[in-house]
Amino acid sequence: MEMLKNLDKIVNLCKARGLIFPGSDIYGGMGNTWDYGPVGVELKNNIKHAWWKRFVQEQSNVYGVDAAILMNPRVWDASGHTASFSDPKMDCKSCKQRFRADNLIEEHSKGKVSAEAMTNEEMEAYIADNKIKCPHCGNFNWSPIRQFKLMFETSRGTVEGEKDVVYLRPETAQGEFVNFLNVQRSMRAKVPFSIAQIGKAFRNEITPGNFIFRTIEFEQMELQNFCKEDDAMALYDTYKQKALQFVLDLGFKPDHFRFHDHEKLAHYAKAACDIQYLFPIGWEELNGIHHRSTWDLSRHQEYSGKPMTYLDPITNEKYIPNVIEYSIGADRLTLAVLCEAYDEETLENGETRVVMHFHPAIAPFKVAVLPLQKNLSDKAKEVYAMLSKEFRCEYDEAGSIGKRYRREDEIGTPFCVTIDFDTLENNTVTIRDRDTMEQIRLSIDELIPYIDKRIKFN
Amino acid sequence: MEMLKNLDKIVNLCKARGLIFPGSDIYGGMGNTWDYGPVGVELKNNIKHAWWKRFVQEQSNVYGVDAAILMNPRVWDASGHTASFSDPKMDCKSCKQRFRADNLIEEHSKGKVSAEAMTNEEMEAYIADNKIKCPHCGNFNWSPIRQFKLMFETSRGTVEGEKDVVYLRPETAQGEFVNFLNVQRSMRAKVPFSIAQIGKAFRNEITPGNFIFRTIEFEQMELQNFCKEDDAMALYDTYKQKALQFVLDLGFKPDHFRFHDHEKLAHYAKAACDIQYLFPIGWEELNGIHHRSTWDLSRHQEYSGKPMTYLDPITNEKYIPNVIEYSIGADRLTLAVLCEAYDEETLENGETRVVMHFHPAIAPFKVAVLPLQKNLSDKAKEVYAMLSKEFRCEYDEAGSIGKRYRREDEIGTPFCVTIDFDTLENNTVTIRDRDTMEQIRLSIDELIPYIDKRIKFN
Repeated sequence: MEMLKNLDKIVNLCKARGLIFPGSDIYGGMGNTWDYGPVGVELKNNIKHAWWKRFVQEQSNVYGVDAAILMNPRVWDASGHTASFSDPKMDCKSCKQRFRADNLIEEHSKGKVSAEAMTNEEMEAYIADNKIKCPHCGNFNWSPIRQFKLMFETSRGTVEGEKDVVYLRPETAQGEFVNFLNVQRSMRAKVPFSIAQIGKAFRNEITPGNFIFRTIEFEQMELQNFCKEDDAMALYDTYKQKALQFVLDLGFKPDHFRFHDHEKLAHYAKAACDIQYLFPIGWEELNGIHHRSTWDLSRHQEYSGKPMTYLDPITNEKYIPNVIEYSIGADRLTLAVLCEAYDEETLENGETRVVMHFHPAIAPFKVAVLPLQKNLSDKAKEVYAMLSKEFRCEYDEAGSIGKRYRREDEIGTPFCVTIDFDTLENNTVTIRDRDTMEQIRLSIDELIPYIDKRIKFN
Repeated sequence: MEMLKNLDKIVNLCKARGLIFPGSDIYGGMGNTWDYGPVGVELKNNIKHAWWKRFVQEQSNVYGVDAAILMNPRVWDASGHTASFSDPKMDCKSCKQRFRADNLIEEHSKGKVSAEAMTNEEMEAYIADNKIKCPHCGNFNWSPIRQFKLMFETSRGTVEGEKDVVYLRPETAQGEFVNFLNVQRSMRAKVPFSIAQIGKAFRNEITPGNFIFRTIEFEQMELQNFCKEDDAMALYDTYKQKALQFVLDLGFKPDHFRFHDHEKLAHYAKAACDIQYLFPIGWEELNGIHHRSTWDLSRHQEYSGKPMTYLDPITNEKYIPNVIEYSIGADRLTLAVLCEAYDEETLENGETRVVMHFHPAIAPFKVAVLPLQKNLSDKAKEVYAMLSKEFRCEYDEAGSIGKRYRREDEIGTPFCVTIDFDTLENNTVTIRDRDTMEQIRLSIDELIPYIDKRIKFN
């Protein structure tokens, strides 16, 4: 197997080249938050657009929504989050730091012991028996385990004296479920159909973040497929394949993925599977496909009193649809894209070239316009103005042309257009390919169609 | 002056046609939140793309960011929000409802008395003198005024016993300011340059919402221009014009806008101006342009201890840049777009046609594919598959062709492509224009360039 890539190098490149900065950096950061910089915001937006194009735009029975982050608190009673979305936490009574008990056990045993199936009493006993110490201060001075809510809580306060709790949504899925009736009716949707959403969710997790792999604030791209019970397993299999095909079409190597079928299922679930990617930190979940049966809609019917049923216009059958969920983290996919694209090449002259081999459709900038010398900048700006009507472009006139190529390689710009003295004579430019480093000469009029054809995501 | 449009009609159309639903609708809603439905999410995304294209993509000295919503709490000390971002609230001691004291005065006096400059004592005295009653229960039984924080508060809880307060950002601006150094350095940006962002912010307001005009959760589109002090006023004027030009280019009528210069300025501000739009509720702020001097960067320098200075590479001068802010609400602009586009036309046969005259670039769906009869659906699906690779399309085969046209008019689809029996013979279709209702016959091969040319935003 090839060497795992070095995550630190990628983190450093991301900060130096304007992809991703630590959140609230000038204040020493804010645990597990990250800000997308000028290059990163384009990359992430392009990834979201590619996903939306593939799964919403190109499928006639998929309907997008963008639901509010703050929802009626009853939603979280129905979904079960209020009652049970929590982690087992222990406080170190010496240094006051807080830890997940299951993580303490798994880290201490180097992954050999799984705490997943243990009760809180069993975890406390294991930690006591093995004298597991605080990773922060080294003392053995634990509080008992308490369940710590993973939903961020805030309050509305519109009525005096009432606490009026509201949560930051811990998942986007409920935004799709509560809109089932409104979408079905307004779009006259026929089962099978899907509701898709891209949006932020928040979890108060106390875990090592591994850069943007796990953050307290993250963006999900998600599709809930509503179908008949008899069709659900076939749709589940279809979405395993569609989810895999999507990342393969973004240029990932097939052997960097594997399916991981869940053995332990939620009580309502009929099947669940992750697609794992070979991150620098090892094989980890990239996305999930879940057969959720009628659980979600049934619960909302129970808690809202509204019948969450579909009336088949042909058979007149009335039923609560089954749900097949396909969910992928936009930030996590961005991390996978960064890891997959990162490459260090040794050039003929012995120098190392760092290059991001992004699929051109998701590359942050499509083309950089580079005047060979400063006195060519009028012409170069003219070409930039033309191209920037169509594509996100860079304009750079500082430093040697070689250095400017390297900089574009590091942010994965697929094409560099160089303006030289011949350009003034005959209106032609050189265009350089990021991956092959080959250059060809083109008329300025040919640039837009040339680039346009090569940056499609189909 | 023409009649103000009816907001209720627009709200009803939005719910019926899948544009905007009340948030958490099946649970009776969640005050002042709204969910974008399948049609609305496309409209809002297109508006955001048009803004980003105009202000980020087409300007070489503008850098985008996407900062986290949860920021280090010191950010809000520096910005002044922790100390003073609050409203004067009174509780009705009879019915426990909470109100803004200034709103009570302004509503009671029908806008004749402005409470803006009153102290809390003056407001209490005015309410007592005028015996202003509770609008909810009609009693006169008020608590004293208390300042009510407008920032939603939550807590991180990573250390035992500490409250560890974190806020939902009440504005996106700080995400641009805290990234000033990281953006300037990583992009080697030269003053004047700008940092742009589109993102959500949250305010715990207790106010009549007027649909998506004012919501507790909203999306801002914003640009902070960093410049020399001497250039600031010229840039301020430039952005007043650019901001206006943007909405005019989206197809708005010029006389639906007016500039509103602020007479009362924040102590640090040198100039401030709104562009107001003639909403169905009257003239109201659509966007703002503010000359914020060096206030924001100076405060962050003071609170973070990091020098927020720029070193001019030519003059070697070191200074804290001035800031000209241009900010527009994505939801509020969406509302303005809906109001501007809405039209009821009387047809020759006496029927009323409701039509949304969206600029084609922001229309939710660009084209609808409509087979004239069901047995033409194979061919129609072929055309849909081709078009949906390029554009967001509708496919509709239910009901009479006239009804299907009306439905597309109501969601503002600029083009309808009809598949008929001639299509099978000679590969041509009719394409109908939403605004003129004229139809022409085109070869299927001509469709993509025909539509592509007419949906650009330049």
